[in-house]
Amino acid sequence: MKFQIAVDIGGTQLRAACYSVGENRPRCIERIPTVHPSNSPYNRLEQLIQSVWPEDGAVESIAVAAPGPLDPYKGIIFEAPNIPDWVDLPLRSLLENRFQVPVALGNDANLAALGEWMFGAGRGHHHLVYLTISTGIGGGVIIDDRLLLGKHGLGAELGHVTVIPDGPLCGCGQRGHLEAISSGTGISNWVREQLNNGTASILENAVDVNAKIIADAARSGDPLSIAAFQRAGTYLGLAVTNFLHIFNPTIIVMGGGVSRSWDLFIETVRSTIHLNVMNPHFLSDLTITRAELSDDAGLMGALALARSQNESRR
Amino acid sequence: MKFQIAVDIGGTQLRAACYSVGENRPRCIERIPTVHPSNSPYNRLEQLIQSVWPEDGAVESIAVAAPGPLDPYKGIIFEAPNIPDWVDLPLRSLLENRFQVPVALGNDANLAALGEWMFGAGRGHHHLVYLTISTGIGGGVIIDDRLLLGKHGLGAELGHVTVIPDGPLCGCGQRGHLEAISSGTGISNWVREQLNNGTASILENAVDVNAKIIADAARSGDPLSIAAFQRAGTYLGLAVTNFLHIFNPTIIVMGGGVSRSWDLFIETVRSTIHLNVMNPHFLSDLTITRAELSDDAGLMGALALARSQNESRR
Repeated sequence: MKFQIAVDIGGTQLRAACYSVGENRPRCIERIPTVHPSNSPYNRLEQLIQSVWPEDGAVESIAVAAPGPLDPYKGIIFEAPNIPDWVDLPLRSLLENRFQVPVALGNDANLAALGEWMFGAGRGHHHLVYLTISTGIGGGVIIDDRLLLGKHGLGAELGHVTVIPDGPLCGCGQRGHLEAISSGTGISNWVREQLNNGTASILENAVDVNAKIIADAARSGDPLSIAAFQRAGTYLGLAVTNFLHIFNPTIIVMGGGVSRSWDLFIETVRSTIHLNVMNPHFLSDLTITRAELSDDAGLMGALALARSQNESRR
Repeated sequence: MKFQIAVDIGGTQLRAACYSVGENRPRCIERIPTVHPSNSPYNRLEQLIQSVWPEDGAVESIAVAAPGPLDPYKGIIFEAPNIPDWVDLPLRSLLENRFQVPVALGNDANLAALGEWMFGAGRGHHHLVYLTISTGIGGGVIIDDRLLLGKHGLGAELGHVTVIPDGPLCGCGQRGHLEAISSGTGISNWVREQLNNGTASILENAVDVNAKIIADAARSGDPLSIAAFQRAGTYLGLAVTNFLHIFNPTIIVMGGGVSRSWDLFIETVRSTIHLNVMNPHFLSDLTITRAELSDDAGLMGALALARSQNESRR
């Protein structure tokens, strides 16, 4: 029996799972905190992989999803959130030396796109645009059944396109990016700004104003919170219209924590697209839908990477 | 001896050229006006192709560059500027029936990108973004040595990305697109608007205000005309920054009539990119340069299409 091991490196959690070749349900899955005083994140990662290693068969490959920036061709992590020691870490060669099997590395949003295309909402599509909307906004694009990577594997940074020139500050340090407006952070920053300006809201005395709390307030009718999601949806709709003009895809898939508030922004997204698309041909055969893999997007994305790489090795 | 015929359908001119397989210089080239009272544009096109048909050998294929919108997979032209009769014209099957050789059809900006990649400024690159800046702005993208087309071949409409929400009206009917601001039309519309608002300029009494005249005025020191190209360059730079984040290319190639005024906007483009890029990794190995094929971009693009399709047939 042959196995593939998928790993998802998050800022708070490391996950690993072992899959039989051809099976999409993990045979076993383990999760541990990324940072712990007992040992280094890299040692914890090795131990975690060891803990899912099958005793009754050979491992064909290991695939790892990690937050960018990273170089998927060279297998190097440039930086990792919450792991300050990981600067230019040659993760692929470290793991290949330790486990003696091929190791593949990919950006987690890119791999989530690959996972949705292979196992989730995008099955059967050849041209897919994926957005993960949470604290930040990440992207992944499938064109003609291939993942868009670009020269150094840095492509598909769909959260970092300008939607308001000189607009709000983005997590990347630039201004007016989609992420600065339509991410959870963008939504809560805007609400806090309106509250500071004296806008009336049931959130006036809230201790913590985050996207989840704003969503709850919107559902209970708070006009400021409703407006916050409509604003996020308008700029998301403008950006998605641009992605239609650029990629002419047949499906837009949205995942990430903020996509759980889908009902609060999707109508604004759709109407913005319909108002702004340059030509109705771009809407023919177009599906806009929620991601299916949710919490396991990283692992399933890594599994998709393992499968597509084994495919190309055969 | 084997030959390939390349055709470029423009709003004012039809061009056709015959190339020996493996040669990049045309053996013969003919140009005629697209519209003429003597006969229909389609009949003129057939005659033009006939006029370059070699008597001493077999034609392997015909490739046609045409302005969009069109379906390159089905070989159908949805609309063509200045040729009102061409609505949903099945050009490929018409020409295949007439000439009994395989015919390929592509969007002229996409094919100009393919031409620059195969024969021009983009030789040796695997990830290329091409912009043609003239009356409008067209685009073409090469990813991993393949042309970005999308589901219906409508992709890479890089002139139709929003750079100013609710900004100036675009040729496509939408607002704030790159084309509405940084094309020749966008530049001259803005100058006319400033003149109407009473801004001082040596163009105050000009009969016709177009991009060429504004470029001449800028070169002779007219502050309004200089500002017009800087404004165009700023938004072009913002859009190109987005294309870097999206495609992570190694070369940006700019063609089209307005690119002849390169000296008037390129420094603004470069400084805008440097100010706005999210991460310096996107600038490593990056070249920003002018197109090399200029007037023959359409024909060379069609030739590139013929060569790449013959390649995939072999």
